[in-house]
Amino acid sequence: MSRPRRSEHNRQALLDEGMRQLAEHGYHGTGIKQILDSVQVPKGSFYNYFESKEAFVAAILDQYTEHHVALFDAFVERSAQPAFQKLRAVQDYMLAQFEQADCQRGCLVGSIAAEIGRSSPLCQTALSRSRAAWQRRVGQLLQQAQNEGEIRREIAAEQLAEMYWATWEGALIRMKLDGNTLATRRIVENTLQLMRATPT
Amino acid sequence: MSRPRRSEHNRQALLDEGMRQLAEHGYHGTGIKQILDSVQVPKGSFYNYFESKEAFVAAILDQYTEHHVALFDAFVERSAQPAFQKLRAVQDYMLAQFEQADCQRGCLVGSIAAEIGRSSPLCQTALSRSRAAWQRRVGQLLQQAQNEGEIRREIAAEQLAEMYWATWEGALIRMKLDGNTLATRRIVENTLQLMRATPT
Repeated sequence: MSRPRRSEHNRQALLDEGMRQLAEHGYHGTGIKQILDSVQVPKGSFYNYFESKEAFVAAILDQYTEHHVALFDAFVERSAQPAFQKLRAVQDYMLAQFEQADCQRGCLVGSIAAEIGRSSPLCQTALSRSRAAWQRRVGQLLQQAQNEGEIRREIAAEQLAEMYWATWEGALIRMKLDGNTLATRRIVENTLQLMRATPT
Repeated sequence: MSRPRRSEHNRQALLDEGMRQLAEHGYHGTGIKQILDSVQVPKGSFYNYFESKEAFVAAILDQYTEHHVALFDAFVERSAQPAFQKLRAVQDYMLAQFEQADCQRGCLVGSIAAEIGRSSPLCQTALSRSRAAWQRRVGQLLQQAQNEGEIRREIAAEQLAEMYWATWEGALIRMKLDGNTLATRRIVENTLQLMRATPT
């Protein structure tokens, strides 16, 4: 019984350290050797867990997405606020997380996508899946906010959501450049402001 | 007389090849050795031209920015369109350029900033300078468009411009992921649409 548990422990240790190094050094700056040097996993065993660096990074991206999507869903279900306030609360929560990491790490999905685009099919699939999962959830909140009369209706909620994803990712690039969230907060706040229904 | 000209030629050849490789492989994926292998420049001479990889990349970013800013300024000065149409025309021109490169390269500044953030002070300065140069120009057009009654006035033009920069960079990440500009065009178009003055 101990082997599968150790195996699962090793796999998770590789994923955790990989996520940390990817966020700091990007795709090309992250080497399997450095990851193995940092964790207590037998050197030769990496390829028992992952077929390739691409498969490894795709697994990290999937885990990153599952974690954040679960947080998002739990918050949205628990909160009794109107949809528009929920979106703002999620945004504030995430920015506070980034601030705790000194604004050095943005969204892993946006950073890796900006770096490698479609050059790895496995990663491209994981990145696009993540983008779609996030966008679908934002779209549902925006749709609800439209129904609640909080935001403008002449653009479909799903199109506002894809715009929001882009603005969010770009605003996080700005955060990484600036080393603070001042401009980033203005950017996302102004984006929401532009979406708001004009008071009649 | 021939030495300085050859020297300048070599320096430019390194910058050109560096820009090509940076756009394709990112900061960490670009090695000085590979660049030297691709150009007809004596192997040992790289550090005669550039103090470090950081200084080299910062010089590439500066040149990239100067080139695009000059194109932007020339177009804006030449065109007789209203400011809002000028912005849309610049946007269309750039997207057409990206499409010609199979949507594999986005904005070099956004991609490198997403990858390395502030980890290199020299590059951070070049990236921020580039972002500011671009944003200032977009801000001037948006200010003019506000004066011309084309866009909403309740948010200052410079804040709309920083939002536009973020949305643009995020929309180019989307382009690189998708391999086409369909969503990217919707995103920037909807952003402009939200900025438009509501018809009275």
